[in-house]
Amino acid sequence: MKKSMKVGIAGLGNVGTGLIARLQDQGKLRLDGELVVSGVSARNRSRARPVDISDYAWYDDPVALAKSDDTEIFVELIGGSDGPAKLAVEAALDLGKPVVTANKAMIAEYGEELAQRAEAKKTPLLFEAAVAGGIPIVRAIRESFAGTELKSIRGILNGTCNFLLSEMAETGRDYDDVLADAQRLGYAEADPFLDVSGTDAAHKIAILSSLGFGVPMDFSQVSIHGVDSISLRDLQLAGKLDHKIKLIAEAVQTEFGVICRVEPVLLPKASPLAMIDGPLNAIMIESVHAGNYTLTGPGAGSDATASAVLGDLSALLSDQNTPVFGVCVGLLSQTFCPKDKISQSESKYLIRAELRDKAGALASLTEKLAGSDVSVDALLQDSAGDSEFAPIAIMTHNCSLAAAEEAVSRVNSLDAVHEPARLIRIESS
Amino acid sequence: MKKSMKVGIAGLGNVGTGLIARLQDQGKLRLDGELVVSGVSARNRSRARPVDISDYAWYDDPVALAKSDDTEIFVELIGGSDGPAKLAVEAALDLGKPVVTANKAMIAEYGEELAQRAEAKKTPLLFEAAVAGGIPIVRAIRESFAGTELKSIRGILNGTCNFLLSEMAETGRDYDDVLADAQRLGYAEADPFLDVSGTDAAHKIAILSSLGFGVPMDFSQVSIHGVDSISLRDLQLAGKLDHKIKLIAEAVQTEFGVICRVEPVLLPKASPLAMIDGPLNAIMIESVHAGNYTLTGPGAGSDATASAVLGDLSALLSDQNTPVFGVCVGLLSQTFCPKDKISQSESKYLIRAELRDKAGALASLTEKLAGSDVSVDALLQDSAGDSEFAPIAIMTHNCSLAAAEEAVSRVNSLDAVHEPARLIRIESS
Repeated sequence: MKKSMKVGIAGLGNVGTGLIARLQDQGKLRLDGELVVSGVSARNRSRARPVDISDYAWYDDPVALAKSDDTEIFVELIGGSDGPAKLAVEAALDLGKPVVTANKAMIAEYGEELAQRAEAKKTPLLFEAAVAGGIPIVRAIRESFAGTELKSIRGILNGTCNFLLSEMAETGRDYDDVLADAQRLGYAEADPFLDVSGTDAAHKIAILSSLGFGVPMDFSQVSIHGVDSISLRDLQLAGKLDHKIKLIAEAVQTEFGVICRVEPVLLPKASPLAMIDGPLNAIMIESVHAGNYTLTGPGAGSDATASAVLGDLSALLSDQNTPVFGVCVGLLSQTFCPKDKISQSESKYLIRAELRDKAGALASLTEKLAGSDVSVDALLQDSAGDSEFAPIAIMTHNCSLAAAEEAVSRVNSLDAVHEPARLIRIESS
Repeated sequence: MKKSMKVGIAGLGNVGTGLIARLQDQGKLRLDGELVVSGVSARNRSRARPVDISDYAWYDDPVALAKSDDTEIFVELIGGSDGPAKLAVEAALDLGKPVVTANKAMIAEYGEELAQRAEAKKTPLLFEAAVAGGIPIVRAIRESFAGTELKSIRGILNGTCNFLLSEMAETGRDYDDVLADAQRLGYAEADPFLDVSGTDAAHKIAILSSLGFGVPMDFSQVSIHGVDSISLRDLQLAGKLDHKIKLIAEAVQTEFGVICRVEPVLLPKASPLAMIDGPLNAIMIESVHAGNYTLTGPGAGSDATASAVLGDLSALLSDQNTPVFGVCVGLLSQTFCPKDKISQSESKYLIRAELRDKAGALASLTEKLAGSDVSVDALLQDSAGDSEFAPIAIMTHNCSLAAAEEAVSRVNSLDAVHEPARLIRIESS
């Protein structure tokens, strides 16, 4: 007999209604059983929705839906790291019910605590949809690469930021202008803070760090810089140096622990991640012995995210019960690199300044740098155009962040420098 | 208490010894338990190997290893679609023991029968390593995309062929020369037939068809053409038309069923698969609602393949028991497109001929084509160089294979045509 499971869905936004549309036509899917929507919950019952929900029991309270005897699997699509989403997930786990969630903030901030609840009841907590939309990166790292020692996980994990940077670079329009456009097109939220500040990408890379390196979740250790600091001029100078600027989220195994950070970096134009433009996401997995892997696809959107939720539901039909982070929480034995140690790791940097367009200015700048611990790989002075300030880009050889920051303060001490000089890390691939 | 499982490994070639090396250092892996090698089997006990196997019980007969009370999980790395590999896998499954295999030929040719044996004993049969080395494509399609309706799966699944084509195009050396080189470098087997004939890629795409579209395995329905028919001149002409020739394996849902085929095709140089050069593999998954996904990585090699085997072993430590092809064999309800229907699907084609370099030859060729059902999108006549024959490339608009073949026979009927004209399909992305 075909297995059948009753699913309660809390949250009926784009992803929730997208999920219901697929479940209403599930004959086309390759599920080893049947998923029956038993109940739904959202803030507003009467809101117009693209799917008919009149056949499903309505719950005003997601916790009541989670606890209902008619709910065998609880799907949480409410969002928000705590509040009703977390209360409802806790209620379901405490009753030993499998949970599927798309909630990256909740997993990044409370993942360890929730995993312990799931372990206590030996029930699954799945969150493929929390990272990179439909790209199956959570299962790949948790299960497929469980027997593969990793060096790094690096990716473009926020489509909004990637769209903003791609669009600015291509059209030469500035940040505020492109952001307003993205909001009109639905690529950016009315309040874009979570995306542009790098927080959303940081939630995702924190989750992947835990899965890929066995680090207990600790979101406070993630170093986060957003795209809101990137100007059109930064992008243009990077372009002249044959690089692109991308918001890169990365988790890298180092001698000090796992560096987990999100920041805009320069990438050579021909590198795989530099070629990911617009709303796509991409993740590169670098292993110690088994080579490098790249996964790309739509990182957001109702159907892509619903696809990830459906993959998790399918695993529950097959009674899968893998530990939440691949191994039991007690075995998560690696550590994050403390934020203050991150500055000791070496990188190449771009120092960008605006230099008064007058004789001797460049000479005084190079002289200042000569006294620092930073050696210059390339220097580009661009035309000042109509302005009295010429953009200057200095690409350094490998140095510590501390040395690069010291060089920046030397540059800033020059009278000829207009606006404080800025620092952007360069990755070589 | 940490879970522990005893693993018997049959086949100690590159993959088997690579797997043992990782298992001997498994503290570095993220396994939720312990994998203990209990016994090994290979043809030659005394052969020098890069790992020490003296601690493991030796079995001359892989069937005896599979049956041994000390074997809880049987890993088959012997190869060959039948013979000892299949006998040993059957013995393990019949005793209800989980099996992990890298054997694409066996799964493609006997997958349905083996899945039925596994189902009868409710035991897992896993084969991530059978397709695309370390790329987690089997689990992605079987599990992550189980709730996602697919349109097509297309990929570069044979690194040897991809290396040969990349190398010919880049160096201008001909097929035999580059093949001899690849054999010296270890990129091609002494007997390259399975690779260059397209059979190896066909085994892999047959497996992915079954997983992605719910088609019962039937290897006889796969249409197979290899790279051995591709000449340097084909590659050069394709290059002048801004295309590359790649051996593409694809499974496409059509009204006639699932087309499953392997053949060299022209791809625009900027398309994602055209950019995969050398020994890499890549797979693109096109879905109906949830967008398109690409996975790339090393498609062969001992460590990449061992990584896939380890991912499967990790799933067994978590007691995963997903149906072999995602759903029970009885629910595999789709059908392959019969080979004779494939010719009715429309494509663009390249017709390549060598035309005597004399007045009127080109006019007579275009006249011949004008009477066919094929309309010409672009025509390139290249220089005859020192020869008396000029290469001609005709790119058609969409037409059926039958119409394209009829056009080729018209071209061949011309006196001015040297060597029979040839036909290569063009894909637009």
